[in-house]
Amino acid sequence: MARNIFVEELVHTPIEEQGDEIVERKGIGHPDSIADGLAETVSVALCKMYKERFGRILHHNTDQVEVVGGQSSPKFGGGVFLEPAYILLVGRATTMVNGVRLPYRTVAIQAAHDYLTQTCTNLNVDADVTLDCKIGQGSVDLRGLYDTQKQLANDTSFGVGFAPFSDLETVTLKTEQLINGPLKKDLKEVGQDIKVMGVRHKDDIRLTVAAAFVDKYVPDKDHYRNVVEE
Amino acid sequence: MARNIFVEELVHTPIEEQGDEIVERKGIGHPDSIADGLAETVSVALCKMYKERFGRILHHNTDQVEVVGGQSSPKFGGGVFLEPAYILLVGRATTMVNGVRLPYRTVAIQAAHDYLTQTCTNLNVDADVTLDCKIGQGSVDLRGLYDTQKQLANDTSFGVGFAPFSDLETVTLKTEQLINGPLKKDLKEVGQDIKVMGVRHKDDIRLTVAAAFVDKYVPDKDHYRNVVEE
Repeated sequence: MARNIFVEELVHTPIEEQGDEIVERKGIGHPDSIADGLAETVSVALCKMYKERFGRILHHNTDQVEVVGGQSSPKFGGGVFLEPAYILLVGRATTMVNGVRLPYRTVAIQAAHDYLTQTCTNLNVDADVTLDCKIGQGSVDLRGLYDTQKQLANDTSFGVGFAPFSDLETVTLKTEQLINGPLKKDLKEVGQDIKVMGVRHKDDIRLTVAAAFVDKYVPDKDHYRNVVEE
Repeated sequence: MARNIFVEELVHTPIEEQGDEIVERKGIGHPDSIADGLAETVSVALCKMYKERFGRILHHNTDQVEVVGGQSSPKFGGGVFLEPAYILLVGRATTMVNGVRLPYRTVAIQAAHDYLTQTCTNLNVDADVTLDCKIGQGSVDLRGLYDTQKQLANDTSFGVGFAPFSDLETVTLKTEQLINGPLKKDLKEVGQDIKVMGVRHKDDIRLTVAAAFVDKYVPDKDHYRNVVEE
């Protein structure tokens, strides 16, 4: 196959030299981050299962996760969940080898359950979340490709990335990491579902933090106001 | 509220003057396009329902749709669906007004069924698709905001857009529109699930077309090869 890698200089006003910049960071407990985290966790668990059984990773793609919010009735001192959240694991996996069906769905659900338990420490995963798995059999074509050592493709794909972070990107990221990290020890009232938006106009930076509170740690309005101020 | 709209010139090498460019267009029958189309259709249907009943649009956001592939056994001359596709409509809506529950879920499912019937002409929507709806009640906060006339927000959000299309973008888009449009009359063998990728290196353009075939219109291998060549 002919070499076809092209490298080109990007002539562009760096974001730091532009007048306006907007950045957003979603914390580990935000539904979008949970979906990403679960997709990764499920893939890692399937890789382990395949390696233990067959010595190598078999074809799968589990990059689709749907998080459907439940319903809660929050109140100072601790409310209740009225409806569990519903989380659907989707994707494709190698489901059978030599006629034997593999436990890909139970492996995926166990991994998702463990991830949620470790990540969302205020959630009772057993009762507050309904986990479902509709991971299906990969298409014959896709699995065929994965089995060969040849350079083949049945799809088109491309990726985009950038580095390093601008000052605003760094500040926005560190703010989320501070709230979800060191601050957690003193402020258990603040949950993991945090979103930080940074807006810069020339040299002025404004950060907006959306942070969900954990009602059982907030007995009343005064306490709520104290936590907001802190 | 102080005016805070800033307009700035983008100093940037236009994509046409860069050496390499990659573009992708997903046709109307691609699962990602189906998800987008359904989200829009469901929102339009809910808007109509609210307007008919209350003279105005009530709060809802139905921008989440999960399309889970089914399983089929294709063969020349026409195969079968083994497992229906599963489509889950998700989001939030105003579910009750003055204590009366609204038919938001049935309205959403009917709209989705009609859209699929019109868009995916080779699909027997009644049997080949399982439609599910988990649209839930909007959070009290969100619905509260929507009811007021004040400038309030409970979230952060921003958008990005660009115009006009580059030559490669135009060619890639028109190719998909040609295959899914005028060509359909002569080539009913080609289904709606089409993806076109355009890659440009300097002045060389390469288009890759992934087009799903409808097996019932393809009696044998020779016919298949003829259609590919056409």
